[in-house]
Amino acid sequence: MSEPLRIGIAGLGTVGGSTARLLVTRENELSTKCDRPVRLVAACDLDRASDRGVDLSAYWVDDVMELAASDRIDVFVETIGGEGGIAYETVKAALGAGKHVVTANKAMLAKHGRELARLAEASGATLNFEAAVAGGIPVVKALREGLVGNTIRRVYGILNGTCNYILTRMEAEHLTFEECLAEAQRLGYAEADPTFDVEGFDTAHKTVLLTSLAFGTETAGDDIYVEGITRITLEDIEAAAELGYRIKLLGVAMRTDTGIEQRVHPTMVPQSSAIARIDGVLNAVAIDGDFVDEIVLVGPGAGGDATASAVVADIVDIARNTALPMFGRPAGELTPYKRAAMRAHEGGYYIHCLAYDRPGAFAAIAGRMADHGISLESIVQRHRAPSADGADREAARNAQPVTMITYDTTEAEVRTALEQIERDGHVAEPPRMIRIERL
Amino acid sequence: MSEPLRIGIAGLGTVGGSTARLLVTRENELSTKCDRPVRLVAACDLDRASDRGVDLSAYWVDDVMELAASDRIDVFVETIGGEGGIAYETVKAALGAGKHVVTANKAMLAKHGRELARLAEASGATLNFEAAVAGGIPVVKALREGLVGNTIRRVYGILNGTCNYILTRMEAEHLTFEECLAEAQRLGYAEADPTFDVEGFDTAHKTVLLTSLAFGTETAGDDIYVEGITRITLEDIEAAAELGYRIKLLGVAMRTDTGIEQRVHPTMVPQSSAIARIDGVLNAVAIDGDFVDEIVLVGPGAGGDATASAVVADIVDIARNTALPMFGRPAGELTPYKRAAMRAHEGGYYIHCLAYDRPGAFAAIAGRMADHGISLESIVQRHRAPSADGADREAARNAQPVTMITYDTTEAEVRTALEQIERDGHVAEPPRMIRIERL
Repeated sequence: MSEPLRIGIAGLGTVGGSTARLLVTRENELSTKCDRPVRLVAACDLDRASDRGVDLSAYWVDDVMELAASDRIDVFVETIGGEGGIAYETVKAALGAGKHVVTANKAMLAKHGRELARLAEASGATLNFEAAVAGGIPVVKALREGLVGNTIRRVYGILNGTCNYILTRMEAEHLTFEECLAEAQRLGYAEADPTFDVEGFDTAHKTVLLTSLAFGTETAGDDIYVEGITRITLEDIEAAAELGYRIKLLGVAMRTDTGIEQRVHPTMVPQSSAIARIDGVLNAVAIDGDFVDEIVLVGPGAGGDATASAVVADIVDIARNTALPMFGRPAGELTPYKRAAMRAHEGGYYIHCLAYDRPGAFAAIAGRMADHGISLESIVQRHRAPSADGADREAARNAQPVTMITYDTTEAEVRTALEQIERDGHVAEPPRMIRIERL
Repeated sequence: MSEPLRIGIAGLGTVGGSTARLLVTRENELSTKCDRPVRLVAACDLDRASDRGVDLSAYWVDDVMELAASDRIDVFVETIGGEGGIAYETVKAALGAGKHVVTANKAMLAKHGRELARLAEASGATLNFEAAVAGGIPVVKALREGLVGNTIRRVYGILNGTCNYILTRMEAEHLTFEECLAEAQRLGYAEADPTFDVEGFDTAHKTVLLTSLAFGTETAGDDIYVEGITRITLEDIEAAAELGYRIKLLGVAMRTDTGIEQRVHPTMVPQSSAIARIDGVLNAVAIDGDFVDEIVLVGPGAGGDATASAVVADIVDIARNTALPMFGRPAGELTPYKRAAMRAHEGGYYIHCLAYDRPGAFAAIAGRMADHGISLESIVQRHRAPSADGADREAARNAQPVTMITYDTTEAEVRTALEQIERDGHVAEPPRMIRIERL
């Protein structure tokens, strides 16, 4: 057997704690699989008292900066979190000292991925991040290795369990966004401040990493279109269901003629698609490659144990000496990221107008769509029963909902048409739209 | 850049032809990803005339045995097929000569996996087989690497697209097995002699490989329980639907107290489960690990291009020098396979009896179940409308179907109870049973 691989963990929260427990309780099996001892030697956190299901006192270290560059470790596991601050400082210090790094920190990598990939390469170290995208689902490995022969056409996924839980509950129980968010908070699926999840930023960070893996481009940071789920109404969800769709918060990355389209937004997906059937806190990633066609990976996107499974897989790759450059090719081979304009996005749209109940209103709306060359696949205009969601508000305004599904058009045409419809004064509130993904 | 990796392909059918085309048309991209030239240098088949979408004349070789051990290649890709014969002989010759081997040949590996793993190890060569299980789905990599930190509790999957197509069509179109098989043959989804697929042998070979990957045991060959789909009736499928289940041909591998349970059989799975929703020719594999919980991988299980995607991933692992021992650990660390007796299998059962329409028949059947300590979760006994499938046959015999769902019991108790029910003479045909998988 070769020399032991010595591991230090910084940050013993949910993920770090589970990782420590996995490494300690399973040292023998992992060492057999790696043909080499794989050993936790140091663990570090501000909170020493919490129970992590395993006694870590023998591994305890107080100074995290000292740990990062310590001669006692070969691998620095960063499970502290946060885009910058101590996570970023310690990872840089570890890479600078030639340590391998394993991290679950999507925010840090989305922002600093390009710099850190170069830093790792310069010092001959590995920077692994399976746990940063879709938790326990081995999607980084699938893109970097399993589907390496393919030219990737599109990657998309449900990457945030909190949002998917809320949308699933809204549809199943006919509850509002606010009611489901409160429930998710009660169950521990959502933070007290849920902004990061429900506004789509967490999904955006993961999408940025998927993009670089899929297309070999430098990480985009926050140069990506992001729209969360806070404005999705029960009315939208029920209208989608009637039309054969479900609404999911997707992160989508695809190559277009004008650059890489990266977008996070509530999306109508056909009920018959695999992605439509992912319920609750589960995550799913679909990878569309030219040779393999479509592969869908489903599993837990969060949780300490599931994420620890990914962290340990990254450690094992290092122990086996099979780790790869961060995005599957040398850092110098990554191409600059060129963002495709969101206004150039092509696709179908669901449009919801609350039109005043008077002659000419609907004709004016339809006319604006026609002005912009937007063809309509379906139109539903009907009086709602008083018991329906929102009906009281609508009746009070003497207005009725009109929902339309467009054939493929561009984002620019839709936005301009909706602005004009609003200015025309036939609608009681700004029109809403939800993009449809052809699957 | 390092030395080129030189590849020879033996067998240019659907998979071999697509692999050759992928390697030739994408040499530059693959070389970038591997930081090393990856180059097809030889191709070989009995049929030289067929169009493979790429001109292979510059690579042509006539003698496959000579190719296997040739100094001109580093990797021997075996896409000939067949459990023994020329595939087996050339793979042995290639490994003996220290060549790496990539193969899609599940039949050969299920039978000779143990021997070939040792042979590869002895000569320091890699034997990769991602394409042998579930075609384009990177499940070998997921088990060997992505989920390496987990103790696997169970692996199961839909591993044969032909069977899944037939079962899907039977349910959707209310057709018989024979009708759907004929349709599958017309569409090229089933062979002229479909035995290998519909009797479950192909699924069994793949299950054997999943078992060794999941549990680190030596390959089981044909020492596995196999039952195909030829006796599944439309009646069974419709009864399953009424009870909230769908019928799928699953390959299942799990560890029990008495050994490894490996079984292939038609299985009732809850309609709400991920595996129940896999339609048509798609494959899916679910991996249940103690840390990650359940990961499901879905994608094309066959087809030239999708399978070539897996073959090329294996080649890239070799080019990157990241390939692993065949089952993720040294051949000497594989533990002997100990088969759990099928009679010891525990689970729920669907049971169908065609009971004579006379006093005491049903009581006798229920009594036999009680004798064996089998509790019933549901019982459906009712007169069928004359138009229902099989009703004429039943009416002619003055018999009516009785379907039962049992709570968990053992295979031994069920089999004995059903034998006694048949001997008691209250049924017009031998009772049938379908196992239920708790998911």
